[in-house]
Amino acid sequence: MADAKQNELMEKVVSLCKRRGFIYQSSEIYGGINGFWDYGPLGAELKRNVKDFWWQTMARMRDDVAGLDATIIMHPAIWKASGHVDTFSDPMVDCKLCKARFRADQLGEIPCPRRPSKMAGECEGEKTEARPFNLMFETNVGPVKDDASVAYLRPETAQAIFVQFKNVLETSRQKVPFGICQIGKAFRNEVTPRNFTFRSREFEQMELEYFIRPDEAVEAIAGGVARVEEGAWQGEPRANWGWEVWHKYWVEQRIRFYESIGLTRGTLEEYWQKPEELAHYARATVDILFKFPFGAQELEGIAARSDFDLSQHERHAGKPMAYFDEELRAAWGKLPQEKKDELWRRYFEARFKYLEKTGVPREKAEKDAREDADGLAKGNYIPHVIEPSAGVDRLVLALLCNAYCEEEVTDEKGNKESRVVMRFHPRIAPIKVGVFPLLKNKPDLVQKALAIRDMLRPHLTVFYDEAGAIGRRYRRQDEAGTPFGVTVDFETLGEAGPDLKDTVTLRDRDTMKQERVKIADLLPRILPAVR
Amino acid sequence: MADAKQNELMEKVVSLCKRRGFIYQSSEIYGGINGFWDYGPLGAELKRNVKDFWWQTMARMRDDVAGLDATIIMHPAIWKASGHVDTFSDPMVDCKLCKARFRADQLGEIPCPRRPSKMAGECEGEKTEARPFNLMFETNVGPVKDDASVAYLRPETAQAIFVQFKNVLETSRQKVPFGICQIGKAFRNEVTPRNFTFRSREFEQMELEYFIRPDEAVEAIAGGVARVEEGAWQGEPRANWGWEVWHKYWVEQRIRFYESIGLTRGTLEEYWQKPEELAHYARATVDILFKFPFGAQELEGIAARSDFDLSQHERHAGKPMAYFDEELRAAWGKLPQEKKDELWRRYFEARFKYLEKTGVPREKAEKDAREDADGLAKGNYIPHVIEPSAGVDRLVLALLCNAYCEEEVTDEKGNKESRVVMRFHPRIAPIKVGVFPLLKNKPDLVQKALAIRDMLRPHLTVFYDEAGAIGRRYRRQDEAGTPFGVTVDFETLGEAGPDLKDTVTLRDRDTMKQERVKIADLLPRILPAVR
Repeated sequence: MADAKQNELMEKVVSLCKRRGFIYQSSEIYGGINGFWDYGPLGAELKRNVKDFWWQTMARMRDDVAGLDATIIMHPAIWKASGHVDTFSDPMVDCKLCKARFRADQLGEIPCPRRPSKMAGECEGEKTEARPFNLMFETNVGPVKDDASVAYLRPETAQAIFVQFKNVLETSRQKVPFGICQIGKAFRNEVTPRNFTFRSREFEQMELEYFIRPDEAVEAIAGGVARVEEGAWQGEPRANWGWEVWHKYWVEQRIRFYESIGLTRGTLEEYWQKPEELAHYARATVDILFKFPFGAQELEGIAARSDFDLSQHERHAGKPMAYFDEELRAAWGKLPQEKKDELWRRYFEARFKYLEKTGVPREKAEKDAREDADGLAKGNYIPHVIEPSAGVDRLVLALLCNAYCEEEVTDEKGNKESRVVMRFHPRIAPIKVGVFPLLKNKPDLVQKALAIRDMLRPHLTVFYDEAGAIGRRYRRQDEAGTPFGVTVDFETLGEAGPDLKDTVTLRDRDTMKQERVKIADLLPRILPAVR
Repeated sequence: MADAKQNELMEKVVSLCKRRGFIYQSSEIYGGINGFWDYGPLGAELKRNVKDFWWQTMARMRDDVAGLDATIIMHPAIWKASGHVDTFSDPMVDCKLCKARFRADQLGEIPCPRRPSKMAGECEGEKTEARPFNLMFETNVGPVKDDASVAYLRPETAQAIFVQFKNVLETSRQKVPFGICQIGKAFRNEVTPRNFTFRSREFEQMELEYFIRPDEAVEAIAGGVARVEEGAWQGEPRANWGWEVWHKYWVEQRIRFYESIGLTRGTLEEYWQKPEELAHYARATVDILFKFPFGAQELEGIAARSDFDLSQHERHAGKPMAYFDEELRAAWGKLPQEKKDELWRRYFEARFKYLEKTGVPREKAEKDAREDADGLAKGNYIPHVIEPSAGVDRLVLALLCNAYCEEEVTDEKGNKESRVVMRFHPRIAPIKVGVFPLLKNKPDLVQKALAIRDMLRPHLTVFYDEAGAIGRRYRRQDEAGTPFGVTVDFETLGEAGPDLKDTVTLRDRDTMKQERVKIADLLPRILPAVR
């Protein structure tokens, strides 16, 4: 639980976000709208940098991941297949007296609107039975508003990846194992949005669906399945990796991603969901938590989802989702009969279990599972999925909380003062360099500073500032989290002799140390530090 | 009108989009959903590159523009103030016989659902009177679904900028003139989506709202207002630029943007809306059209919107939107009385006209306009707006149509064949370099090619391909629009002597010329060409 000091830190972060233009309340001049937040100039840059780096890491640095950018509104049958229409809901009760609606499990925490001295669960108003309230935002597509035109704002980006699996497979030259990644908005009509931007109604996700062979196929091809306990996940991917190793591998990849943007392992927690917490189709789920001031909360979930998702869409859309694996077919033919029988049996049982759990009658489930297992023997299977799914907004909030720092410093004249500094990793800092002429009213200084700005700007986000005392300008960039400051002074103009001509001071945000650097050395010096 | 050849070109572009993974129909395996399109691996990269370059040009390369990233769902009162609730609609009629709904102006073009041999306007079904059908998608926010919880998916990104104008102003150290830019999704429930992705129900916009002084303030400060006829807009912005020069300046800036990503002036048209076509608050609007195969259609509109938008939000939200201009206050004090009177009068009249047109009673309009003009004399005004508003999806479609090219070529062996090549500007091409080992089964070639891939990839989007004949691999990258191809051959390994060791062939997509380049020279050679 958050203590007073943590609450104070959170308040300071929220206040800085508004004051410096990281985050504003959506529609603020109209009184706001609960659960919606806008990113101001600094916030928009920070968020872009986070998303760009994720995309760079996932889609561009890997041969085995392809990108996708799908629509927010999709065919409503997708949410039937995924289970969202039927089960993505909170239980709600209505008060028959005041007509307000409450989450059934929050009756003891939320005050009665009529008599706020009492909790909703204690007041005299009679309550209805709890009924499920679906968290998807609903709308209508086309000119007629009826049941047939109902559509939903996607509550997650994942399903678009599953329904486009075959298209991507056919057009991208990928082979299993491979992944499809996507960044985009998602919407959940949360009953009680809270913790600033952490639980919002409109948010952005960065999701990867990584498609792998079922373990039976791995075993047929590689002769066995590597074990997590033996540390297999630490090396380069191999043909003998089954779902457990792949899952562990992605957990590790994702933690490294967070480390590479400044969230050290000490700020994170790994939470392995207990068997009874898992969704029925999930084999394992790890939550990566960040220690927010309001408690350790989830940044990302990494789930081993078996072949549930593609199987559901195969059945609901009536379109085959199986992948033909040349290597599997070749390997299967060389297996001894008893191995074939064993793998056939295990695959049959897994498919049967899935079909029965999703309501397929026993007899049909048996028949279909048999077909699936026969398919495996010919090289066909529905890929299994490892899903690292991260929230952009909560990650941005974690980066803001993690970066916030107040400290006492001594200025050039020996005076003590306190400064706020956002210690963002340079890679994601909204602005990379501040450029300052020492004085605003000296045209030579201004002209030189503008030339440096123009030189840096095609490569780096630059903030040019000539207003106010130089110390105040540094403080402003400290609050924005700008890792470097470049100051043009009279030495730059050659007034202290030819040695210092065309040098500037380069200030480090964290140490506040300044050193003289040649203008020509600025880019080679700064660029590697911010990439 | 599009002729047969143009229709054929369009069909080829659509077919290539699907075949190569630029664009798929949304929810295709469920039969699709009309007016929604997904971007596949190549399309997602292309679209990202377009958006990134716009953001770089707007937000990062200019001191006078700040970025914003606001929510899609905002307070519904915003759409009342903007006029969208009342007037953003098409007139629709219902058929009393078959219950279908039609746009009133399309009764003659759309077949009757019962008797498709007749048009809807000619069949026996009696039609209702035309009624307005609002094009905004509606939803409900919060657990209760009633009139009070209605909200809309934004039909444009612009309004978020207006409602956050004050927050950005206060946190970004900007002074008028300055702009706020945003990229994001918008939604319009089009009755008849058409022309592939051109008119979609879900689309993305790139909008800039550039806030300027009213001409009366410009005149007070600069002593006069520069004239477009004198070419003022061609130089650097000056204090004497009024709305007309700023508008012309932005038209020119935006055309240069299109040129810089490969759309030459010859592929574009400028359409200056006639006075009778303008919205009542607009002083001028220019549409930039691209000559699509289905006709010249709008890519972007650049509107001079007066002070309408901020004024509307000031009145509807009851929050002051005026900007205090220090320079104006100082300048006003030095004006001769008759100039003061003249500017006061002109500003009064403009404000009065706005207030009366938006339904404010005459007497109150006069009083308020008087206050506004008194405010101007003290340095306060509501900024005017120039709005360059571009559609991302239609721009991507224009780039696809513009790039598509079929030609007859002669291969290495002298055989003629035809190739499809997407001549994207390298800056926005989805993949920048293909890297190929000449043969897949020579580990030395593969290893070297992989090392080159790893060297290039942090800086460039690379596609590594070892499958099939090298000619076919080139063709595949031609279709993807990849400007460069790097091939590792036996010369690279030193088998033709030390001179050619560690050189590769660099192939140009358009000329198909190949030259030998040192591996160490690849980055310095390619990078400047793709930025």
